[in-house]
Amino acid sequence: MPNPPTGFVPGINLASAQQIAEAALAKGRALNLAPLTVVVLDQAAQPKLVMREDGASLLRFDVAAGKAFGCLALGFGGREMARRAAKMPGFMNAFSDLCAGRAVPVPGGVLVRDASGNVLGAVGISGDASDQDEVCAVAGIEAAGMIPDTGDPE
Amino acid sequence: MPNPPTGFVPGINLASAQQIAEAALAKGRALNLAPLTVVVLDQAAQPKLVMREDGASLLRFDVAAGKAFGCLALGFGGREMARRAAKMPGFMNAFSDLCAGRAVPVPGGVLVRDASGNVLGAVGISGDASDQDEVCAVAGIEAAGMIPDTGDPE
Amino acid sequence: MPNPPTGFVPGINLASAQQIAEAALAKGRALNLAPLTVVVLDQAAQPKLVMREDGASLLRFDVAAGKAFGCLALGFGGREMARRAAKMPGFMNAFSDLCAGRAVPVPGGVLVRDASGNVLGAVGISGDASDQDEVCAVAGIEAAGMIPDTGDPE
Amino acid sequence: MPNPPTGFVPGINLASAQQIAEAALAKGRALNLAPLTVVVLDQAAQPKLVMREDGASLLRFDVAAGKAFGCLALGFGGREMARRAAKMPGFMNAFSDLCAGRAVPVPGGVLVRDASGNVLGAVGISGDASDQDEVCAVAGIEAAGMIPDTGDPE
Repeated sequence: MPNPPTGFVPGINLASAQQIAEAALAKGRALNLAPLTVVVLDQAAQPKLVMREDGASLLRFDVAAGKAFGCLALGFGGREMARRAAKMPGFMNAFSDLCAGRAVPVPGGVLVRDASGNVLGAVGISGDASDQDEVCAVAGIEAAGMIPDTGDPE
Repeated sequence: MPNPPTGFVPGINLASAQQIAEAALAKGRALNLAPLTVVVLDQAAQPKLVMREDGASLLRFDVAAGKAFGCLALGFGGREMARRAAKMPGFMNAFSDLCAGRAVPVPGGVLVRDASGNVLGAVGISGDASDQDEVCAVAGIEAAGMIPDTGDPE
Repeated sequence: MPNPPTGFVPGINLASAQQIAEAALAKGRALNLAPLTVVVLDQAAQPKLVMREDGASLLRFDVAAGKAFGCLALGFGGREMARRAAKMPGFMNAFSDLCAGRAVPVPGGVLVRDASGNVLGAVGISGDASDQDEVCAVAGIEAAGMIPDTGDPE
Repeated sequence: MPNPPTGFVPGINLASAQQIAEAALAKGRALNLAPLTVVVLDQAAQPKLVMREDGASLLRFDVAAGKAFGCLALGFGGREMARRAAKMPGFMNAFSDLCAGRAVPVPGGVLVRDASGNVLGAVGISGDASDQDEVCAVAGIEAAGMIPDTGDPE
C-alpha cells in the first residue's frame, strides 16, 4: 500500500472490516466465550460493520459501539480510557455527559492503526469479560494486517 | 413446549405476565410490604404488564422498569448488576449515561428464563426494601412456571 | 363515595384501572381489532396499569402512554389535541419538544373525569385506527363507572 | 419449522442476517446503485448485522437503522409509514419526537415476516433512491427465505 499524502489517512474498507469481525468472532468461539457483539467504526466513528452473535443480551451493540467511540473520541485505547476514568472521574463523568453516554471507558475498545501510527478506526467488542473482549478485538485487527492499540504500552 | 432452535426464543405472553404480577403482589400483601409497583418487560424491554399499587410514590414505575431494563440490557440479574456497580463504578456510570438512566442496578430486577436458560423477559419491582422487592419478583415468576435469575448463584 | 373536601381529588385506584383495561381489551376483542396496548395514567401522569396484548408492535406502549400524557398535560381529550395540532402546528411542535415527545396528539387519548368534572387520570390506547382505539378507551372508562372526555363536545 | 404458540415468535439469527445483507448488497451491485448501508434489526430493534459499503456518506447508518426501526415501532413497512407521514403529519411529527428521531418513514424499511405473518425483525437500506433501496432489501429478505413486507398490499 503506498503511503498516503500528508493529511490523507486511509480508512478501513468493508472487506477489511469483515476480516476483523470474522477473525474476532472466530477467536471468541475458540475461547468458548459468551456471545459477542463486534462493532467496527471508521475514522468518523460511523459503523462500518456490526455483527451480533445469537444470544447476546439486549444492549451489547450500544456497549460495544461505546467502547470503540470512546477510543476515537479521545484517541486512546480502552485501557487508557479506563485508567483515566479511575484517575480523573470528574473529567470522565463530564465527558460521558458531553457525548450523551456514547463513550464506554473499559478494555474491549481498541484503536486500529496503520504501520505509521495513523488511526484508521476502532473496534469495540462486548459480551464476555472486558479482558476477553479485548483479546478478540486484537485478534481481529491483527488478522486483517493492521495494528491494534489497546491503550497499554507494547 | 419444544426447545426453540438457535435464535428462536419464546417471549412472555400477556396471560403469563398477569400471573407473574398477581402472584408478586399477593406475596407483597402476605408479607405486609409497602405499596409495590410491578413491571414485566418482554425480551425487547417493552412493557407487557404494569401494576402500581395504591399509595406507591411518584417514580416507582421508572425505578421498577429500570431494574428490569438493566437486567435485559446486560443479561444479568439485579444482584450481579449491583455487584458490578460496586466493583466497576466507571463502567456503570458510563452505562447509566449510555442508556439515559434507564438501568437501575439493584436487587429487585430479575431475569425470566425458560428451562433451557433462554431469556424471556424481566421483572422489576420497587416499593419496599430491594431484598423484599426481589422476594416478590421471584414468587411471581415461579408462580407462572418460569425460572427467576436474580443474579446470584443458585 | 363521599365528596372529597376542596382541593382533594380522588384518583384512579388499581382496582378501577384494572376494570378499565379489561373492559377496553374486551371491547377490542369484540370488534376484532389489531392487538391493543392500554395505558392508564393517574393524575400525576404516572402509569397505574399497563396491558400490552400479544402481537402488539414494538413502541405501542410509548404511543399509548403519549396519548394519555398529552391529555393530562394540557387538560383536553385527544380529539381536541388533534384539532390543536392541525390549527396551531407551531405551538404543538414546540409543545412536543417541550415534553421531549411524550405527548401524542391524536384520538385514543381520553381523560377520565368524575361526575363533578374533576380529572382523575387518563387512558391511552394504541394498536388499531385511532377512532377504534378511542372506542375501546371510552368503553373501558364507562365500565368502571367514570366519565370519559374524548375532547369532543357531548 | 413449527408455528410458535401465541407470544412465541422466532427471531433472525446471525447467519440469516448475513444472507440478507449479502444478497441485498449483491443486488445493489447488479443494479449499479450508489454505495449502500444495510441494517438488519432483530425483533427488539437491536442491530444484528450492519454493513456499510465504501463511499457511503456519513449518516447512512442512522438513516438505514431509522427506516428499519420505524417499521418495527409501529408494525408497518416503510411505504405505509410514508403514507401516514403524508396523511397524518401531526401524529408523525409527534412520533418522531417520541422516539428521538429514530424512525425514518420512507421506503427502504421493510419488515421481515415468517410464513405465519409473525414479525421477525426489519431491514433498512439507505444510499440510493428509496425505491431502489427497497428493491435491495426485498431481494435480501427473499434470498434468506423470509417474507418481506414493504407496507404495500401484495
